[in-house]
Amino acid sequence: MIIMKADATEEEVANVIKEVYKFGLRADVSRGEFRTVIGLVGDERKIPFSHFAVLPGVKEAMMVETPYKLVNREYNKLLDAECDCRPVKVGNVTIGGGDPVFIAGPCAVESKEQLLRIAEGVKKAGADILRGGVFKPRSSVHSFQGLGANGKEGAEEALFWLRDVGRKFEMPVITEVRGESQVDLIAEYVDVLQVGARNMYNQDLLAAVARTGKPVMLKRHFGAGVEEFLSFAEYIAAEGNKNIILCERGIVPVGKGKSYTRYTFDLAAIPVVRKETYLPIFADPSHATGRRDLIYSMSCAAISAGASGLMIEAHYNPAESLVDSQQMVTPDELKEIIDACRKIHQVVSLASRVKH
Amino acid sequence: MIIMKADATEEEVANVIKEVYKFGLRADVSRGEFRTVIGLVGDERKIPFSHFAVLPGVKEAMMVETPYKLVNREYNKLLDAECDCRPVKVGNVTIGGGDPVFIAGPCAVESKEQLLRIAEGVKKAGADILRGGVFKPRSSVHSFQGLGANGKEGAEEALFWLRDVGRKFEMPVITEVRGESQVDLIAEYVDVLQVGARNMYNQDLLAAVARTGKPVMLKRHFGAGVEEFLSFAEYIAAEGNKNIILCERGIVPVGKGKSYTRYTFDLAAIPVVRKETYLPIFADPSHATGRRDLIYSMSCAAISAGASGLMIEAHYNPAESLVDSQQMVTPDELKEIIDACRKIHQVVSLASRVKH
Amino acid sequence: MIIMKADATEEEVANVIKEVYKFGLRADVSRGEFRTVIGLVGDERKIPFSHFAVLPGVKEAMMVETPYKLVNREYNKLLDAECDCRPVKVGNVTIGGGDPVFIAGPCAVESKEQLLRIAEGVKKAGADILRGGVFKPRSSVHSFQGLGANGKEGAEEALFWLRDVGRKFEMPVITEVRGESQVDLIAEYVDVLQVGARNMYNQDLLAAVARTGKPVMLKRHFGAGVEEFLSFAEYIAAEGNKNIILCERGIVPVGKGKSYTRYTFDLAAIPVVRKETYLPIFADPSHATGRRDLIYSMSCAAISAGASGLMIEAHYNPAESLVDSQQMVTPDELKEIIDACRKIHQVVSLASRVKH
Amino acid sequence: MIIMKADATEEEVANVIKEVYKFGLRADVSRGEFRTVIGLVGDERKIPFSHFAVLPGVKEAMMVETPYKLVNREYNKLLDAECDCRPVKVGNVTIGGGDPVFIAGPCAVESKEQLLRIAEGVKKAGADILRGGVFKPRSSVHSFQGLGANGKEGAEEALFWLRDVGRKFEMPVITEVRGESQVDLIAEYVDVLQVGARNMYNQDLLAAVARTGKPVMLKRHFGAGVEEFLSFAEYIAAEGNKNIILCERGIVPVGKGKSYTRYTFDLAAIPVVRKETYLPIFADPSHATGRRDLIYSMSCAAISAGASGLMIEAHYNPAESLVDSQQMVTPDELKEIIDACRKIHQVVSLASRVKH
Repeated sequence: MIIMKADATEEEVANVIKEVYKFGLRADVSRGEFRTVIGLVGDERKIPFSHFAVLPGVKEAMMVETPYKLVNREYNKLLDAECDCRPVKVGNVTIGGGDPVFIAGPCAVESKEQLLRIAEGVKKAGADILRGGVFKPRSSVHSFQGLGANGKEGAEEALFWLRDVGRKFEMPVITEVRGESQVDLIAEYVDVLQVGARNMYNQDLLAAVARTGKPVMLKRHFGAGVEEFLSFAEYIAAEGNKNIILCERGIVPVGKGKSYTRYTFDLAAIPVVRKETYLPIFADPSHATGRRDLIYSMSCAAISAGASGLMIEAHYNPAESLVDSQQMVTPDELKEIIDACRKIHQVVSLASRVKH
Repeated sequence: MIIMKADATEEEVANVIKEVYKFGLRADVSRGEFRTVIGLVGDERKIPFSHFAVLPGVKEAMMVETPYKLVNREYNKLLDAECDCRPVKVGNVTIGGGDPVFIAGPCAVESKEQLLRIAEGVKKAGADILRGGVFKPRSSVHSFQGLGANGKEGAEEALFWLRDVGRKFEMPVITEVRGESQVDLIAEYVDVLQVGARNMYNQDLLAAVARTGKPVMLKRHFGAGVEEFLSFAEYIAAEGNKNIILCERGIVPVGKGKSYTRYTFDLAAIPVVRKETYLPIFADPSHATGRRDLIYSMSCAAISAGASGLMIEAHYNPAESLVDSQQMVTPDELKEIIDACRKIHQVVSLASRVKH
Repeated sequence: MIIMKADATEEEVANVIKEVYKFGLRADVSRGEFRTVIGLVGDERKIPFSHFAVLPGVKEAMMVETPYKLVNREYNKLLDAECDCRPVKVGNVTIGGGDPVFIAGPCAVESKEQLLRIAEGVKKAGADILRGGVFKPRSSVHSFQGLGANGKEGAEEALFWLRDVGRKFEMPVITEVRGESQVDLIAEYVDVLQVGARNMYNQDLLAAVARTGKPVMLKRHFGAGVEEFLSFAEYIAAEGNKNIILCERGIVPVGKGKSYTRYTFDLAAIPVVRKETYLPIFADPSHATGRRDLIYSMSCAAISAGASGLMIEAHYNPAESLVDSQQMVTPDELKEIIDACRKIHQVVSLASRVKH
Repeated sequence: MIIMKADATEEEVANVIKEVYKFGLRADVSRGEFRTVIGLVGDERKIPFSHFAVLPGVKEAMMVETPYKLVNREYNKLLDAECDCRPVKVGNVTIGGGDPVFIAGPCAVESKEQLLRIAEGVKKAGADILRGGVFKPRSSVHSFQGLGANGKEGAEEALFWLRDVGRKFEMPVITEVRGESQVDLIAEYVDVLQVGARNMYNQDLLAAVARTGKPVMLKRHFGAGVEEFLSFAEYIAAEGNKNIILCERGIVPVGKGKSYTRYTFDLAAIPVVRKETYLPIFADPSHATGRRDLIYSMSCAAISAGASGLMIEAHYNPAESLVDSQQMVTPDELKEIIDACRKIHQVVSLASRVKH
């Protein structure tokens, strides 16, 4: 990591970057109010830091050995010591700006009518962003894979509906990108690109998605510790895209005998992530629990734990949904959840957080 | 399970019990407002239910095949359909009665002075019950094992302090029973006997503790699913002791790469347990996270999830503690936590819970 | 699943396939010695089986509800009741044909010289197939990502070396495909395409790799149960490619306190997979343990458990390796391992396996 | 740890021990061929090593900070550099002496006839030691808990049968001690006391069992890493009982989707344990897999991994067994397993193990 002097010129910055590339690494330039910091992408052990320390305009050059340094809170502190969370703007919505943000919608887009009716319901319930899956990752090749499976036309039609319905109800939209070949198409239509839990380790997809420049929501893999979660967020940041929203959605259950939930919802990961990085982090109680009757409790718990927002699956008639019907809430239930969460957020944020 | 008629006589109940014992099972009698229900302890497949169905006073006799039937919500519903949670009285404190209850104190009792000073602090902070370990379960035989390791006199002295200090500050007291040989001694001095996570599977200890008749707090083993947790609570109930308080304290972490907490705090287990049984369930954020800086967030989250109360380790000077110093909060921090939790509880309980 | 009569004509088969497509599913046709079986790819609940049962040439039409039916042992039994394992031919090597097969080589191709020297060593040690990574999946974007990271030329040069060195020592070659965009390039150069553990859930990559028609080695994700492992192998089979080789390489460690290995090597998965499917299954003790001093023991154990072969990382000077240096064995060690494994295989296969 | 000079007198040793007690620790004295080593039981940070280093007869005094030092290989090396495994004598059987040892018998003793018939069968199959449960740990209080549940007479009768039948067939016998109150009774009748997986963390039971002076088999808890497993074996050693036999029997399964075995059999723990300590380690494929059809494969695999022996549940008619019927093998199957294992052991032990 190379910290420039406060009065370093653009030319000096450019010169440092040129030197970085000479050693086979890439440079990630962040400009704060008072100084510019150049992060190094690649193996820093190849860099002669003493050489860099004496280049014109350089204040300090030092090795940072952690698998996630670009998204690290420490790194960001150099630019803005006061920053608690670096907000991500998605249309008219600010994620990580203080107030919790609610993403809701069906698991999969099934028809324009279905989407319209659900969108209307979740908007009234207080949701900020509309979700809807077009390319569905499924554990069985024999299950419904979303309208994206119907060739390019099917996918494009569903994406068009999503954008259109989002505009009608003034909600930005988000959908999952499942494979590299879908990135360009999806980026045309949506405001946030989601990389699902199963693809968290897919570094080629992460790089492709990052290069669109659009905000990316990265869900934690159910087999990943927090360290790996952040290390793969780093793959996005390394492409110069810092508009990253993380999402905790449960890890593989463990223990003798049943636990009655689909995954273990690791809510402590939320404050941990907020201490390790400046990125906003969401929680997805729908996939974490897989149970409609736990969504209320676990939504309140996630907001208490400090989540920047929630992603919740909703449907006017859960039983009708082709996917995940047992974890959908109705718009009325969603309203009750969002209302309680907003109140809890006030309690939690009023208290001067006990920190160390 | 045998359900008696509303007007069944005591004689008829006694007769059914006698019959149950003939078949090699034991009987657990619960008397509700309107009827008496006799639970069968043992393998119900040995019972000819048709024979029981026609005994005088019997309304219905049916097989219930689940490893936990005595603590099952269904079973209790027969006695009291409205019951959400069957409260446990501990001195002047009611656990599971609606308001969250806070247990706090040092990890281990180290001296009378230490205990006095901590008790004063946690009382002021709003705690209801005082905790303090005398027999400490430790991963290494070479670590401090509590004052209980200093023979019977050491143990008795520490237990005497605990009771004495509890009385001074009008707080019931709780301590852990680590082995069968400690049960009688500890039962003389404390209001609640705690069985620690490591001993959850120790069925002989559970039976011995249950037979004291005192309230028992049972902590979930870090390798147990919820089903097994409740199946071992059943060992306590099977001895006729229904004053059981459960406690979630984290399960073994899982996942590639570090997660930065000692255990995974499985908060979804809280609403799950409340749906499966009528027993109150606590959460212990101190042991679950092992991190002082996460106690506030995770306490709020646990109360949001529906916990009946919290158990939190506190010390006036965490660094001084001989055990678990990195997870202790100060009395001032505890006050902030308890205040926030009480407010959150109000929000959560005001909303008509979304249930199915 | 639709089972044709022994004397069904090609026309009748074609007619059934046409009908299958009408209902929105795809057909997987397998021709055995005595009969033809048509597997259905997609949601079988959409199919009116009574309609299919009476089509000309059809013997039986029945619903099969399992996430893996095409790779299921039951399905294959209809074609060949005696088949224990359906072998996969890779150049002059037969995998799953009875004798264990050994794949060895460096973790990553670093230079032609390195590869030549290692290939010579592993050939002498008794290895059958040469491995070498070009596109390396890594937990940190800042680590060495293989020569594939040096643009198309870098990748092609490394792949060319791999093929060339393989030919020189008469060993087929295998390398990992990390992303969809690499499939075509890699398929030109190697004999087996490997999908790494991190990509097991990447269904778009699985489909793309399957369509090359080349044999595919699929490694189990460290967060996947056996059921999911086979369900994702099904994604390959569903593209008509049955030349699938599975590989167990360890699952996420679990338990309080350290276990001193990188993953938990789940060797019981080997006989389980062999009972559930007819696919050959390898074991990779290098990645599973991450410890050079355990490779011998765990190789012998994997062969005892019934593995069709082993994949082992080798280097003439482990300390020099840019990746995974602590888990490499030398060619001399490899020889000792292969020799012991071949002897153990004889013991194990001589005994009439205790089966039920 | 205090290493005495080769010519240190008994008086000098006694003096060092006296000093150790002064500082509140206990001393564990081991006498090797050439020297005496005094292990310290307790927190070594309380000891002024410089003071001990100059006591008469002392060669070296040093701090050893690991939760298991008495059972540590390093510690034993000081006494006997050549020792690979310190054998445990059980009647006429030597465990850890080179040849694998086989323990077999029913899960639970159900009647004298059942035990006699099974003992005869396993003896003919080649088993060395007879097992039979009297006090059964069960997940449900409503399941059969062994004849030990029938009061002291029931327990004593079953223990008497066990000893008697063992003598008849010249096999030492082993049974599980489930609670502290059973220790004395069981120690009268059996040759090895087993502490089951669920009780691995029960330090009071470990100490009580150790004090009988009899060999102890300690099974690994399904939620414990290897480090904790050895740390709890240390509780036995700390009582002066080094006749410890460890046993791997599977850890909690983890991963999305089913894995079709009861636990994950962690066979890599076997060579790991053998490198960390000098204690013999067994494997129990019956409980680890819970599947009769996997016992053969996994027995061979465990012996390949270096297990000192196996514990296998057997029954002349598995379906009749009151407990664990689906994981029992018949005596004929057992013979086939033992024969294959003995051959594999020869292959594995002939090769000069690849070690580092």
